Amino acid sequence: MEIDRQRLRRDIEANAAFGAIDAEIGRGRTVLTGTAANREARDRLVERCEDAGLTVTVDAVGNIAATWVPANADPDTAPVAAGSHLDSVPEGGIFDGPLGVYGALEAVRTLRESDLATTLERPITVVSFTEEEGTRFGGGMLGSSVATGRRSPEDALVTTDGEDTTLEDALESIGYRGEGVLAAAEWDSFLELHVEQDTRLEERGVPVGVVTTITGIAHATAEIVGEANHAGATGMDERTDALAAASEFVLELEAAGRERAAAGDGTAVATVGKGTVRPNATNVVPGAVELGVDVRDVEYETMEAILETATATLERLEDDRGVATSFEREIDIEPAPMDRRCRDALETAGSRAGIDVLEMHSGAAHDAMRVSRVTDAGMLFAPSEDGLSHTPHEWTDWEDCATATRVLAGALAELAGADGT
Amino acid sequence: MEIDRQRLRRDIEANAAFGAIDAEIGRGRTVLTGTAANREARDRLVERCEDAGLTVTVDAVGNIAATWVPANADPDTAPVAAGSHLDSVPEGGIFDGPLGVYGALEAVRTLRESDLATTLERPITVVSFTEEEGTRFGGGMLGSSVATGRRSPEDALVTTDGEDTTLEDALESIGYRGEGVLAAAEWDSFLELHVEQDTRLEERGVPVGVVTTITGIAHATAEIVGEANHAGATGMDERTDALAAASEFVLELEAAGRERAAAGDGTAVATVGKGTVRPNATNVVPGAVELGVDVRDVEYETMEAILETATATLERLEDDRGVATSFEREIDIEPAPMDRRCRDALETAGSRAGIDVLEMHSGAAHDAMRVSRVTDAGMLFAPSEDGLSHTPHEWTDWEDCATATRVLAGALAELAGADGT
Repeated sequence: MEIDRQRLRRDIEANAAFGAIDAEIGRGRTVLTGTAANREARDRLVERCEDAGLTVTVDAVGNIAATWVPANADPDTAPVAAGSHLDSVPEGGIFDGPLGVYGALEAVRTLRESDLATTLERPITVVSFTEEEGTRFGGGMLGSSVATGRRSPEDALVTTDGEDTTLEDALESIGYRGEGVLAAAEWDSFLELHVEQDTRLEERGVPVGVVTTITGIAHATAEIVGEANHAGATGMDERTDALAAASEFVLELEAAGRERAAAGDGTAVATVGKGTVRPNATNVVPGAVELGVDVRDVEYETMEAILETATATLERLEDDRGVATSFEREIDIEPAPMDRRCRDALETAGSRAGIDVLEMHSGAAHDAMRVSRVTDAGMLFAPSEDGLSHTPHEWTDWEDCATATRVLAGALAELAGADGT
Repeated sequence: MEIDRQRLRRDIEANAAFGAIDAEIGRGRTVLTGTAANREARDRLVERCEDAGLTVTVDAVGNIAATWVPANADPDTAPVAAGSHLDSVPEGGIFDGPLGVYGALEAVRTLRESDLATTLERPITVVSFTEEEGTRFGGGMLGSSVATGRRSPEDALVTTDGEDTTLEDALESIGYRGEGVLAAAEWDSFLELHVEQDTRLEERGVPVGVVTTITGIAHATAEIVGEANHAGATGMDERTDALAAASEFVLELEAAGRERAAAGDGTAVATVGKGTVRPNATNVVPGAVELGVDVRDVEYETMEAILETATATLERLEDDRGVATSFEREIDIEPAPMDRRCRDALETAGSRAGIDVLEMHSGAAHDAMRVSRVTDAGMLFAPSEDGLSHTPHEWTDWEDCATATRVLAGALAELAGADGT
């Protein structure tokens, strides 16, 4: 069973053209849900799935599912699913998401052309979840949250972006407000191929990672309110500078993350990724700053400890600097262990194909995290050059893309009941 | 000679309606050069000046001058000018600028109706300078820079805003791209009435401040470039976080300002008023941060010392955190002492009217700073409640507005050659 590396590369490169941005080094794209770039990316995926003989459906929140029913499989049997997402962060890379979607499609095409095709007992469904990154409609993993029943489609569809456009309007404008809801709970199992976004595979020279646990993730917004005032006429002792207070917060959160990472096995991370200053004029002492906070670890209690440091810092800043503060927790997801059967299928597939695999945790959240709550889920990683991701510098060699896709195909066959891969 | 306090109040309140914003407490407005709000504010000023019998001209960069020639004055004699600006910072207050413009108009109306009218030997010109705040077209004091020959009108007109609109297009769109250049060097003298933006008058219970020196002002943009990366998958030891580095910079600049203020007479200030994070998503380690830096003092060498601390901090951050940095100085204005003759005229006017005045420096830059380089210039302040400015909380009592205007009127009469006020 051989992956068609060039066919996979052509698909990922064609997808990279949608929302492409100018980047001095690397290749970047900005593909937000409901934009023209997102419509083009979706249209091409649908076309490529149909070309490969799959039956495509689109659900209420724009999740795309494309199913192949092998010759000897009962179409009513619970399918094995595989996929990821097509949306990106602003100025993101070309592999994060698309590798999992087109890798799944390539795995299906490969299985279809292989001797194993007649031995498969379950349908295989290629999935593209809507708004995984959460850049436009907040929160992240929106499509998989709906597909796993965590959120109702009604609730998701009225979510608005920064300019009061609803998800429903955004999806309708690109023709992807479908019907019904993709039901992940009805899948036999789910596998997600993704780029590692870290350097562990690269450093060990291993081409495929099998995920043991996806770290939990907490997002919060910290607001710090001081007093906007004239930067020239307000003496140093008379000001309540929201940006100076926010700067202390950023550094203390970073210190808390470093401390917990050093105390544990290095999996804890704490980040302020977003900062908005008001009124944001050079000659005005900042009156308010809003910060977006991201905290993760494989242990939920470590996350809690870092978040407690964050709120304690805000309280201290109220006392020391006279600012008013608030801390709103918006995402709170516990760590998600991957299913033993899926991990075994991936390791068996690697072993049968003579491909080394390495067990590792995932520091990033993925749709597989949501799916793991309702059915058996597994994940595999392809190496990321220098560990870079969410930037045009993100890169995975085409050979590594194909190697991981080979393991994905083998594991899908394993889960779909093939006699031997 | 009595100021018509209600007439002055009506003018300032009517002007406050243009670009008015919702504010829970206080009254705010956003009036950027070349916007509809700016057109409305200008149209009303022109109308009010013409109603008062003044002759209005508009120069190439939109500076408005309205001249009254007293009955016994030679129209060709160098005029005494007074004024300020109508533009605001984003979400600024209603007095900063308009008090100086409408105070000057009210002073002229008062003089015209007074017994002194026939004794004045010089024309009096009410001035509204374009883009003092520099919010839309950068730099600040744009109109007075052109009127004082520091910048050519050609250079100023091709300046662009953040969306590549030129000042010329912006002014043409509101009908205020006039002809010629207002020549401040040809004025006998210039007085600017402004709100204090500090608490010194309020604390001492004195209604009028006479400015001795306007502090110098330096603006610079610091750019700090790290590496955008996935906030979950990038370990604490693997990241180059531009926002964490920027936070150190903000705090060290604040410390340098505090130290210099404590070492001197408290006039030194250092502010980071602006901060922009890229890509600015909660789940992405910040890749780049741009900071707007403002440094001021009555002593130029203190400003230099603070700016040297800023660049030294950036060098340290390059070593300690692996970021790349740049520091571009955009504004560099030396402190401006006010003219003795103008200060005397203001103090004499206060004394004759039985109004206490207090000598003080100005921590804010004003158009009078530019004018002081080409002719005799003076400034007077009205008290600011709690010292607040550049915010909807900015407030000056109507009685204080009238009292300061009374001193302005007396000083204008003094400079225009009245026999006695």
